[in-house]
Amino acid sequence: IDESMVEQAKEHTAKLAVPPRALGRLHDIGEKLCGIMGSQDPDVASKAVIVMAGDHGIVDEGVSAFPQEVTGEMVKNFLAGGAGINCLCRHVGAKVIVVDMGMKVDPMALGLETGDIFFSHKIAPGTENFAKGPAMTKEQAEKAILCGFERASALINEGVQVLGTGDMGIGNTTPSAAIGAVLTGASLDDMTGRGTGVDDEGLQRKKAAIQKGIDVNQPDPKDGLDVLAKVGGYEIAGIAGIVLAAAYHKKPVVIDGFISTAGALIAHALCPLAGQYMFAGHCSEEPGHKLMLDHLGLKPILDLGLRLGEGTGGALAMNILEASVKVFKEVLTFEQAGVTNKE
Amino acid sequence: IDESMVEQAKEHTAKLAVPPRALGRLHDIGEKLCGIMGSQDPDVASKAVIVMAGDHGIVDEGVSAFPQEVTGEMVKNFLAGGAGINCLCRHVGAKVIVVDMGMKVDPMALGLETGDIFFSHKIAPGTENFAKGPAMTKEQAEKAILCGFERASALINEGVQVLGTGDMGIGNTTPSAAIGAVLTGASLDDMTGRGTGVDDEGLQRKKAAIQKGIDVNQPDPKDGLDVLAKVGGYEIAGIAGIVLAAAYHKKPVVIDGFISTAGALIAHALCPLAGQYMFAGHCSEEPGHKLMLDHLGLKPILDLGLRLGEGTGGALAMNILEASVKVFKEVLTFEQAGVTNKE
Repeated sequence: IDESMVEQAKEHTAKLAVPPRALGRLHDIGEKLCGIMGSQDPDVASKAVIVMAGDHGIVDEGVSAFPQEVTGEMVKNFLAGGAGINCLCRHVGAKVIVVDMGMKVDPMALGLETGDIFFSHKIAPGTENFAKGPAMTKEQAEKAILCGFERASALINEGVQVLGTGDMGIGNTTPSAAIGAVLTGASLDDMTGRGTGVDDEGLQRKKAAIQKGIDVNQPDPKDGLDVLAKVGGYEIAGIAGIVLAAAYHKKPVVIDGFISTAGALIAHALCPLAGQYMFAGHCSEEPGHKLMLDHLGLKPILDLGLRLGEGTGGALAMNILEASVKVFKEVLTFEQAGVTNKE
Repeated sequence: IDESMVEQAKEHTAKLAVPPRALGRLHDIGEKLCGIMGSQDPDVASKAVIVMAGDHGIVDEGVSAFPQEVTGEMVKNFLAGGAGINCLCRHVGAKVIVVDMGMKVDPMALGLETGDIFFSHKIAPGTENFAKGPAMTKEQAEKAILCGFERASALINEGVQVLGTGDMGIGNTTPSAAIGAVLTGASLDDMTGRGTGVDDEGLQRKKAAIQKGIDVNQPDPKDGLDVLAKVGGYEIAGIAGIVLAAAYHKKPVVIDGFISTAGALIAHALCPLAGQYMFAGHCSEEPGHKLMLDHLGLKPILDLGLRLGEGTGGALAMNILEASVKVFKEVLTFEQAGVTNKE
């Protein structure tokens, strides 16, 4: 990012008619946006959240509290406007885009048609069970990242100024925890949580499945693509692609919770500079999330006990980004306001 | 508040097509709003922040980094729309109301006219120096609370659904710390911070002035009005009045930072039930703020390192209240959305 733009922005903040940096992180966020967008006049009014959907072979190991058909049912709910992400995106003024990256179900069978807000980039009908072998091939992983990159680039080219990442996929906290453990080096006990709400036995099955996946596949922590292909998921790959596109186009991307941050970890492993374009929307209730954010050097904007995914925490945080921009651009300086500075 | 409405709201939340309580505090906030407003159809779209302004005799002890004329200059800035609170209220769709509760300056001398958004309820041109005697008489304290109560009631009668509290008054972290120490029982070391940015010597002067004020006046921690009159301020009294009015009219009130919470502590001391109508907008950088919030049993909604006052943190948090209401009312249930619930 353009550090000179950040420095120039800090000089402007110092002139505002408030005690030094009295609006705390709103100043930090506004200045980072100046650096990302290479401008003293950043704008994040045009917002979109891309919800990536995919299914997971690992559910055969009994790792989720919900049945697999819920992935498609929830996608249908997204397109009908009735889910948490729709509600919060309407609230913050963001568009919701849904992408089938690898759902098991055929969307046509659910009566869903692709068009303005729903896209099919299905790489395969769900990943393989990674407890028994790689979740996908490296070619599939690459293709999935590229699809995410292209979808995000298309939105940016249409004028979207800030992107949010979202996910839908029954079982997807399991590959996310696997990615988190491999890339941050944290233990499975620290990284693995209850997702949508498995019981104690389900949690043990989940950890055992991840351990098996790591033992069988031996993902290389130095190779993001290898980790993604061996223990990842198609929606996670798509999210990695969104993050890389944001960095490529010098636009901010607001990362949502546990699954989105697993995608961000893959993007960061492939291209560490991409980390500079990220904002962590919120801190998830999933215990490993904080470890992932620490690895990326990100401090969450909100901490409201959310654990829904879909992009909800990131969507809500977009509102704070917009507030930060307005503070930067609309608050008058001591001079403009005719206010006496410190004695 | 109406606990049966909270219970009924929780039953509705349990039916939403999300994992159990997956939107965390957004559910809690939405349900509390149902209890406060006595309705399963709460609404907080109509918002107002009342910024109470007053000056402080205690500044004679050298407790602030800014000169006293800044109080009036900033009020002028509020009325011109150029301050942090204006910017953030525009962002969340809230009206800004400014009240002269006890500024030293005559607003007419600054060219400021009262009208739709600026009201004069000046009790006196600043408090007395409470290091030498009471800040105000008990009659003045009562009158100031009533003025705040009436101003807030007028807004509610005009249709405002949620109130925010704001403050402006050079030196006002000093009476706020005094109130906080007396009412929570915390030490002055824990309760007293740097306000707008005093240096080490200023911080020592500030603590010494508060200690003198407590020794000289002997405020009675069991008597909120006594504490307010002896070591308080007119804008703090006005804020206490806003909080009491919110509770009286069964409307939510979003408390801002350190000074607003001192006002909330006074309201709570006078009427403990008023605490049920409060939301803590954010956690201030002022170290004693957390102790005040703990005393009130409130958990802050945002934690963004703000320390401006004016009502800014509360204004930003109003947006989260509104999001919570929308989640409660707009997210479809499993049944409505046709989504399979847990296995």
